[in-house]
Amino acid sequence: MTADTFDRYAADRADARFTDWLRERSEPDWTEAVEHGFVAELADGTVDDAVFRRYLVQDYAFVGALVGAFGHAVGQAPTMDAKGSLTEFLGTLTDEENDYFERSFDALGVPDDERADPERADVTEAFEDLLVRAALQGDYEETLAVLVPAEWIYLSWASGTGGTPDEFYLSEWIGLHQDPAFEAFVDWLRGELDRYGPALDERRRRRVERLFRRTVALEVQFFDAAYE
Amino acid sequence: MTADTFDRYAADRADARFTDWLRERSEPDWTEAVEHGFVAELADGTVDDAVFRRYLVQDYAFVGALVGAFGHAVGQAPTMDAKGSLTEFLGTLTDEENDYFERSFDALGVPDDERADPERADVTEAFEDLLVRAALQGDYEETLAVLVPAEWIYLSWASGTGGTPDEFYLSEWIGLHQDPAFEAFVDWLRGELDRYGPALDERRRRRVERLFRRTVALEVQFFDAAYE
Repeated sequence: MTADTFDRYAADRADARFTDWLRERSEPDWTEAVEHGFVAELADGTVDDAVFRRYLVQDYAFVGALVGAFGHAVGQAPTMDAKGSLTEFLGTLTDEENDYFERSFDALGVPDDERADPERADVTEAFEDLLVRAALQGDYEETLAVLVPAEWIYLSWASGTGGTPDEFYLSEWIGLHQDPAFEAFVDWLRGELDRYGPALDERRRRRVERLFRRTVALEVQFFDAAYE
Repeated sequence: MTADTFDRYAADRADARFTDWLRERSEPDWTEAVEHGFVAELADGTVDDAVFRRYLVQDYAFVGALVGAFGHAVGQAPTMDAKGSLTEFLGTLTDEENDYFERSFDALGVPDDERADPERADVTEAFEDLLVRAALQGDYEETLAVLVPAEWIYLSWASGTGGTPDEFYLSEWIGLHQDPAFEAFVDWLRGELDRYGPALDERRRRRVERLFRRTVALEVQFFDAAYE
């Protein structure tokens, strides 16, 4: 088991990254998320349309809260450079990615009311609660603690994926998360938490760790829910 | 004097806009802001470089809080469309406008430490306090109540301006706020407050009115401070 404090973790590592410690602390959920059956089926194109449709509707509902949390992060980020990087990614989420959702919903026959305000699965509600609470009750580090794993898990599963399924809504969903610009952004986002996390007092580090771990656990449940 | 409630104001007007009522309630400060001597000197190119430099350094400090408040608005906005429009304007603030500040600071010989974290004038601190408190203590409508006048005043003074001063840091500053895309954005932003403001209960409408009026008053003091 990974050291229970970052100081102990860093004691015998030259370039210890705070986010590596957090990721290790979130095992075995981390591995379950990035190697989830949903991801495997998505990559080889065998995922059932009904499963992917259910997933995508819930994910779009969740993206509203995710975009909101990135917005609050712009509000909390201590430098204009950081506000700029976060804003650029917000632009991707609200533009290219939003466009992907609309085209995919068209292809999968999702009616308007299910796009705008679908009935949310329990895990979607829980995930939104976690994000909004982290951002509103915490400061920049707490918001990063949910945003970093949410994006990093997507980069990780997509990086490990070789296949290119025929359906555009499957292949583009993989492509959006294999993109070099996305990879650079996730690395930058991790760097922010690497930089500010270790400077927190022990109580807030624990809070950050708890938020990170809960996010990873909810990612697993979110994939599970697509089959229910 | 304008009616003291929006309902009374709207009673004898067919298409009463909530933001028109707020603007009228903020007189005479509104007119003082949009016809301020600083604006007149800026337009005819007679503003002293030392005055403009002082203004620009304080404004850049303020822009950090402004960008932050727009970020929180992305977090609070109820629809993905609204989040998208706010994100697009955030992109302008952190990209083109940020670039303008850097080039102008170069031309005016402003050193790095005065750009990154200048000694703030009292009015700058007060303005940042107002924006951050509105966004963190309130919801979408309260955040709009400070963002709408902050942007609308800039559109108003720039629209009434005919001159094109020689110095790029003067002419571009006017041009950024005469831009048709900026005009369309301010109209959209007003439309958000027009739409959600009247649905608030009387206590929150009063809060929105107070925030709006204080923003306008601080704009006047902010221009004043450039001469002190």
